[in-house]
Amino acid sequence: MSYRFLEDGHISSPQGFRATGISCGLKESRARDLALVYSQKACRVGALFTTNLIRAAPVFFDQAVLARSRENIRAVLINAGQANAGTGPQGLSDAVECAKLTADELEVPRDSVLLMSTGQIGAPLPMRNIREGIRRAASELDSGGGRRAALSILTTDTKPKDRAATVTLREGRSCVLAGMAKGSRMVHPRMATLLCLITTDLAIDTHLLTRALERSIPPSFGSLSIDGDTSPNDTLIVLANGAEGGMPIVDANSWEFGAWQEALDALCADLMQQVARDAAGSGKLIQVLVRGAVDVASAQQIAQSVARSSSVRWACTNAAPDWGGLLVAVGASGTELRPDRLELRIGPTPVMFEGMPVGFDSRAIVQALSGPEIELIVDLHIGNQSASVWTCTLTDER
Amino acid sequence: MSYRFLEDGHISSPQGFRATGISCGLKESRARDLALVYSQKACRVGALFTTNLIRAAPVFFDQAVLARSRENIRAVLINAGQANAGTGPQGLSDAVECAKLTADELEVPRDSVLLMSTGQIGAPLPMRNIREGIRRAASELDSGGGRRAALSILTTDTKPKDRAATVTLREGRSCVLAGMAKGSRMVHPRMATLLCLITTDLAIDTHLLTRALERSIPPSFGSLSIDGDTSPNDTLIVLANGAEGGMPIVDANSWEFGAWQEALDALCADLMQQVARDAAGSGKLIQVLVRGAVDVASAQQIAQSVARSSSVRWACTNAAPDWGGLLVAVGASGTELRPDRLELRIGPTPVMFEGMPVGFDSRAIVQALSGPEIELIVDLHIGNQSASVWTCTLTDER
Repeated sequence: MSYRFLEDGHISSPQGFRATGISCGLKESRARDLALVYSQKACRVGALFTTNLIRAAPVFFDQAVLARSRENIRAVLINAGQANAGTGPQGLSDAVECAKLTADELEVPRDSVLLMSTGQIGAPLPMRNIREGIRRAASELDSGGGRRAALSILTTDTKPKDRAATVTLREGRSCVLAGMAKGSRMVHPRMATLLCLITTDLAIDTHLLTRALERSIPPSFGSLSIDGDTSPNDTLIVLANGAEGGMPIVDANSWEFGAWQEALDALCADLMQQVARDAAGSGKLIQVLVRGAVDVASAQQIAQSVARSSSVRWACTNAAPDWGGLLVAVGASGTELRPDRLELRIGPTPVMFEGMPVGFDSRAIVQALSGPEIELIVDLHIGNQSASVWTCTLTDER
Repeated sequence: MSYRFLEDGHISSPQGFRATGISCGLKESRARDLALVYSQKACRVGALFTTNLIRAAPVFFDQAVLARSRENIRAVLINAGQANAGTGPQGLSDAVECAKLTADELEVPRDSVLLMSTGQIGAPLPMRNIREGIRRAASELDSGGGRRAALSILTTDTKPKDRAATVTLREGRSCVLAGMAKGSRMVHPRMATLLCLITTDLAIDTHLLTRALERSIPPSFGSLSIDGDTSPNDTLIVLANGAEGGMPIVDANSWEFGAWQEALDALCADLMQQVARDAAGSGKLIQVLVRGAVDVASAQQIAQSVARSSSVRWACTNAAPDWGGLLVAVGASGTELRPDRLELRIGPTPVMFEGMPVGFDSRAIVQALSGPEIELIVDLHIGNQSASVWTCTLTDER
């Protein structure tokens, strides 16, 4: 392995980044609610946004900024408390003002600031608090401030979620890659807005950043399904500021890119697991593993169908030794399968083999469903592709 | 209107039908669990089966029988307690034996019996009980036995669901149309298996029966979404025995067919409402109405997305004045929309108009969400098509 996770790493661990998180009264709890991440050098950017047809104002704003250039971003401002979604033209105008104020305070170009928001839908941003907050945050930026930033983007999450890794390059060089995420169903409304910001001090071409995300996200955040909803705010941004000092990586086959990609894969998987475990809370973490599929897409479709099934969730929540719901969810997915080859396992215990029920000790199933982590395995036996989806029972679900 | 609902009508109200329902020990509760519906004359048949790729043995069996002929059915045997799904070759063999025994007891051809099952998945049919049950049911058939049949097909349902109507034809003639249904999520597993049997003494061509179902089902049973699952057992069968005495109807434009179709529309809508209300139990019945869509399919897709949304269900269950989940579910449906034209209403109260939040009294929303019936209205304002989906909050859902 060419990477190593850092102890106490955070979003401003890579060279040339500074961060902070403050409280400016956006949350009723008075907890930190405004994060600012700043780079001393212009960053190349890769980004993924929600597939929901309702997009929040910060998503519209970021897409407009990045449509012009993906090579000059200097800062990302993130607020928690109000999603600035379903807020119409006023929401867009507020987003523009947030970015302008941030740029002016940081003395960077006005088109070099990106935004993320999470929180209540339909509520206007409390601009008076945010204006004052931006000024304060800009004055408190600090290379050790990453953890404060990770704390500031939380909503119903209970723990900050961040991680950083050092990546060994050639000729004694190394770079740092870091990420922070939030994602946990909100109570008002109940859903899983996912925000993730990744920073690195390596210099990488923007096309390679996009390519790297397209590989790292499907098996990590793309495999997370808390309650089946997408949010108008879902956003993932990676910033590469090149402060490490090397020439920009432009070759997808280069050793450096391979090493960095490997670290990105691990970082995204780690952050996704942190999100899943936090969302589970006192509920149970469920991994749905689909094997033996003809392709990854159909494996993922079946895994998603199982993860969304209320019958399956009910059985997991109540540790009920019933696999009927699992069978039904596999069949309801709409993807190719051979019922006569189907194998189903709950934890280590097979319950169906070659399409027929297997006699089993129901106490073994109850035990497998009673722990904090549950594994459901579907083997289609029609190919050699597989996919996992992670979900969890919710603590207020019965 | 050319039809009139009958008081105390049931599945054997049409001429020439007999029915019964007995208890043969398939349910732990010892309640009635085996229904038999018999026709003195051979019936023409229309049928719809589950779209789940896992099909129960009785579904395979019926499809095989109907592939040979749709004009000679004499009886339908329905058991509740075991679904005979996920039971492999043994399940098919058991289904064949059930039909054979029924045919022999009734002294009708062996390929003239159809089957339905509902109950636990993966459990073998208790054939000893069923053999004895078939003999007893065949001896107890009775033109007044329809209500006993409707009681026998229930699982977690709390009430029998049946209805009959008399349809006025021309020249002083009339016919009778009747239906019975069951559908309520099961506890083991939790889902909504839907079984529906419809009988009529009118003579109708099999192609017209299929055509009639294709019109009546989408706005009735096709608009019901209890917990988003399909079952391997979902089955809807219509039997037309022609005992009324007229010539078979073969013209889709005939007055008679129009009158009968109108009654079928109303009968299916009525049975669906009975299913929805029973499934709601002490929970709340929710109608999601999508208007102003470019086509019915997209209206239905959005309505289904809203009905499945855990955020929306959570808000309805808890009477929380949050419409964020509703907005998100509309956007997550993946169908065409113009966010700037969107109108959302909770009961009579608008919460979003032309894509912007509308100031509202949150007490009005809480009140609209606190009653036994909730109406959620989505107006896309991009066309003139509409669709409704009915769902309900579950009593053990929080």
